[in-house]
Amino acid sequence: MARAAKHRRQLIETAMRLFREQGYASTGLQQILAESGAPKGSLYYYFPGGKEELGRAAIELAGDKILEMLRGVEKRHPADPIAFVRVYGKTMAGWMAESGFQSGCPVATTLLETVPASPEMTETGNRVVDAWVEVISRVFVAAGVRPREARTRGEQVLASMEGALLLARVRRSTRPILDVAKTIWS
Amino acid sequence: MARAAKHRRQLIETAMRLFREQGYASTGLQQILAESGAPKGSLYYYFPGGKEELGRAAIELAGDKILEMLRGVEKRHPADPIAFVRVYGKTMAGWMAESGFQSGCPVATTLLETVPASPEMTETGNRVVDAWVEVISRVFVAAGVRPREARTRGEQVLASMEGALLLARVRRSTRPILDVAKTIWS
Repeated sequence: MARAAKHRRQLIETAMRLFREQGYASTGLQQILAESGAPKGSLYYYFPGGKEELGRAAIELAGDKILEMLRGVEKRHPADPIAFVRVYGKTMAGWMAESGFQSGCPVATTLLETVPASPEMTETGNRVVDAWVEVISRVFVAAGVRPREARTRGEQVLASMEGALLLARVRRSTRPILDVAKTIWS
Repeated sequence: MARAAKHRRQLIETAMRLFREQGYASTGLQQILAESGAPKGSLYYYFPGGKEELGRAAIELAGDKILEMLRGVEKRHPADPIAFVRVYGKTMAGWMAESGFQSGCPVATTLLETVPASPEMTETGNRVVDAWVEVISRVFVAAGVRPREARTRGEQVLASMEGALLLARVRRSTRPILDVAKTIWS
């Protein structure tokens, strides 16, 4: 990777981690810069729009990471919604436990802090969520559920998982995630 | 209400509203004081522990409000989980729409920003969530579900609702809430 692209990536990766663990508003640009290891000038060079521009890039990167994970689970269980949701939950629970219950959904906190007040964040959030729902819904369609109903179910699986990730942080336990993943529609 | 108690209440009410709409970190004590209408000295008089003490009081008040609503729904549908969840969802959807999709769960954003890093917020959050789950679970028990299973279901209903409230803000639509409330376990 060219050095320039590397610095940009370091900034976004660091922002994503900090927004996920401590929230968007409480994370200052100076902390992101310091922890990223990127040179001082790079922040405003790559993100002339400032924090919101970096915030959108962080949501997009987080969106891609979750999307990649969901597609991996779909590959293993392309037409079995119950198995799909179970593996999805196990993966999220594993990440959550690994981080000492700091890292839940990488976009939820930032979105709750900024939407719908910020149209830009709302637009980015919608795009990310749509892409996730599309994969989950596809598994239901492959299992014979009609497209419209499959979409509703895809949103419901995502909603349950998002809520379970919140409860898991409060409880300091993976149980809410595993419970949701184990018994939903089973 | 004595004037003193009134000022304390105004501070907590204002904090709760602002934390709900814009998050905990981005809400400054000065904004809370200004919008509350309480006199300048009252903030440190009632909350010598500063923002975190006010944050806990706001979570507790929000917890009580949701608890009161849930108990009201339980009174109407004491042994019918499907009707209970439907009315619960309709109520949350109504609040959400009324606020222009600003006001979701009154504690979710603050908790995602602060737990488990803050043991005090985590403790308060757990107490609030426990009280909500207790009411929801009671409806399942009254419908004949065994206590242990009813508790798991209570947590699942709450998780689904919390996630749906997040999606509703991103989508600027009550549909995710109503979908979850309509089809869960039906």
